[in-house]
Amino acid sequence: MKIYADNAATTRMSRAAIDAMMPYIEEYYGNPSSLYSFGQQAKEALESARETVAKCIGAQPREILFTSGGSEADNQAILSAAALGKKAGKTHIISDAIEHHAVLHTLKKLEKEGFEVTYLPVGTDGIVKVEDLEAAIREDTCLVTVMYANNEIGTIQPIKEIGKICREKKILFHTDAVQAVGHIPVNVESEYIDMLSSSAHKFHGPKGVGFLYARKGIRLTNLIEGGAQERGRRAGTENVPGIVAMAAALKESVEKIGENVKHAAALRDKLIAGLAGIPHSALNGDAVKRLPSNVSFCFEGIEGESLLLLLDDKGICASSGSACTSGSLDPSHVLLAIGRVHDVAHGSLRLTLGDDATEEEVDYIIQSVREVVEYLRGFSPVWRDLCAGKTEFIL
Amino acid sequence: MKIYADNAATTRMSRAAIDAMMPYIEEYYGNPSSLYSFGQQAKEALESARETVAKCIGAQPREILFTSGGSEADNQAILSAAALGKKAGKTHIISDAIEHHAVLHTLKKLEKEGFEVTYLPVGTDGIVKVEDLEAAIREDTCLVTVMYANNEIGTIQPIKEIGKICREKKILFHTDAVQAVGHIPVNVESEYIDMLSSSAHKFHGPKGVGFLYARKGIRLTNLIEGGAQERGRRAGTENVPGIVAMAAALKESVEKIGENVKHAAALRDKLIAGLAGIPHSALNGDAVKRLPSNVSFCFEGIEGESLLLLLDDKGICASSGSACTSGSLDPSHVLLAIGRVHDVAHGSLRLTLGDDATEEEVDYIIQSVREVVEYLRGFSPVWRDLCAGKTEFIL
Repeated sequence: MKIYADNAATTRMSRAAIDAMMPYIEEYYGNPSSLYSFGQQAKEALESARETVAKCIGAQPREILFTSGGSEADNQAILSAAALGKKAGKTHIISDAIEHHAVLHTLKKLEKEGFEVTYLPVGTDGIVKVEDLEAAIREDTCLVTVMYANNEIGTIQPIKEIGKICREKKILFHTDAVQAVGHIPVNVESEYIDMLSSSAHKFHGPKGVGFLYARKGIRLTNLIEGGAQERGRRAGTENVPGIVAMAAALKESVEKIGENVKHAAALRDKLIAGLAGIPHSALNGDAVKRLPSNVSFCFEGIEGESLLLLLDDKGICASSGSACTSGSLDPSHVLLAIGRVHDVAHGSLRLTLGDDATEEEVDYIIQSVREVVEYLRGFSPVWRDLCAGKTEFIL
Repeated sequence: MKIYADNAATTRMSRAAIDAMMPYIEEYYGNPSSLYSFGQQAKEALESARETVAKCIGAQPREILFTSGGSEADNQAILSAAALGKKAGKTHIISDAIEHHAVLHTLKKLEKEGFEVTYLPVGTDGIVKVEDLEAAIREDTCLVTVMYANNEIGTIQPIKEIGKICREKKILFHTDAVQAVGHIPVNVESEYIDMLSSSAHKFHGPKGVGFLYARKGIRLTNLIEGGAQERGRRAGTENVPGIVAMAAALKESVEKIGENVKHAAALRDKLIAGLAGIPHSALNGDAVKRLPSNVSFCFEGIEGESLLLLLDDKGICASSGSACTSGSLDPSHVLLAIGRVHDVAHGSLRLTLGDDATEEEVDYIIQSVREVVEYLRGFSPVWRDLCAGKTEFIL
């Protein structure tokens, strides 16, 4: 059996997205900035894609800026808010401990430039407390940036509550919604979101495309200077085929969201129940307030990397945490933030099911993980010490 | 007849590029940062593309950084050199008057931050004088950035001479080679180039992908912070299908470069000769030191925009100057720099032929331009004044 259970890392492009894209590669390949009709056809496709994307998140078309992906959108959103803040003499930013590195590293850059950042903690449930946010707000707070759903443990933040507070306090609110858009309902209007980042390849669109939503009136700072594309806010010939494909993928994902959520959540809960039967294991993050496709576990006494490689042998694609940091030997900052100690955090497994996942596949995953964990524990000195009572079990 | 004569704006993706791309969209869609074999397949494709691209310009694979396009590469190259310069107390940059806006606007940003920029003039031939460069070099010059070939008038700069001077003076040399790579031979080693920007969709690759070459040892500043992709210098999931397609397109373009140059230059010269027969017209830039596919003309007494729209009616896609600035009412900074006065600069036409252009097409273009120019002059008050001797002809 071959099971791709790493949909948080990337997804397969949908047929709808490929079909929407190909004509703009093979036939209507004009530059949308060109005056002739062949260029204007591309321009129309671009603007139609903008309308579709906007509609999917409750925004206006002119509030959508196309980027090369989620990381670029995160960088531009945060740097823009910081520039606006600085102008107004406000240099305090609030974020949290489990953000994606596209957010965290941008904030580190701003700290070097004199900004002060408060990183809200999360509980063992992997969720920010609204009262912590309220307590952290200062007179000079210019931005709150809290992700919609976590890329490792899938926990969903109280976005609407955070948005409402920020709106009342007149503080810009940005959310990295890369894992959420297309997977759970997202509405920038009703959730008081000022800026939102998204990436096409996470919802069956192509790699190398994303978008930044910025509420009307928020002046964006350019990350890429040059031509007047994207109303002067993002230079470079627009990736028309990619953008058209992204819009088609998002439209389809959003249309099917109710059915997908139901299907995925049922399989997720079955998978969680199955893996919870493995001794000395624990689910990471809240069991309910999590993405419908995300299952994240820690298994005591094993190394996540070996687990992944042996699951690969069994045809299962899974990850320990985020794909963006795999290869790093440091334990995940997200798992540490929810209170996992180093050794336990090293034994992590993230399974993110696709929309087409089946019960049979879930059964196979449970069986395989059980076997591999048992096998690895069989020659783990850490496990031997735990069993011999030399060290104490945590999970 | 339908003729796409705006290949400097964008090109049609080659069959080789599409064929190389599709498997990475439909089948091998894994995230190259993932540990499992399915992710590693994508990683191998990425690294193989890097080797191909490097080979095509005489670089080492580790000197190639994949970006979302030429503008991003220009921005990152210039900001990186500026950061290195600042560290060393050097804040003077040399560029020229006919650069692309991705370079010019980045330099404007640096000027606001305290950098001083010398913009070398160009002659009526549209070419920078090496002696002007030599005279402009100062003790605190940290970067010379001069484009390889101009995007509007197609003139080719003396890159090797500039590179040699910079290498001797230990000044970083960057070239925006977006119009050159894949079209004329480019070799970073023999031409002493330290940094080079390129864009896939200009040589029959996809839109939304490009690369930055940076000589080994040059520490790049991140434009996009986040994950550890591209050896920590460019965050965001790699656009594997786009990158693979870019490599395939570039390989094919470079393999055919001799034949393409010969074919295009012959047609270009025929086109130039034909258009020169129209009264009060002039070729923009040097007739020889120009891209083999570029023909740029000014016609006195007409508006370039009307010319384009009427040519569009005749099935010819052409532009007045750069696609990135079309829609702007200001005359081209490039045409002004080569000495065209405002009125004349407004009557410009850029025709950039494809590799598959034919003599028949060139004949049709000449005939069509002749007819349209004549027609437009028929009701142009400017032309009437010129003919009546009220104002003087310049061309």
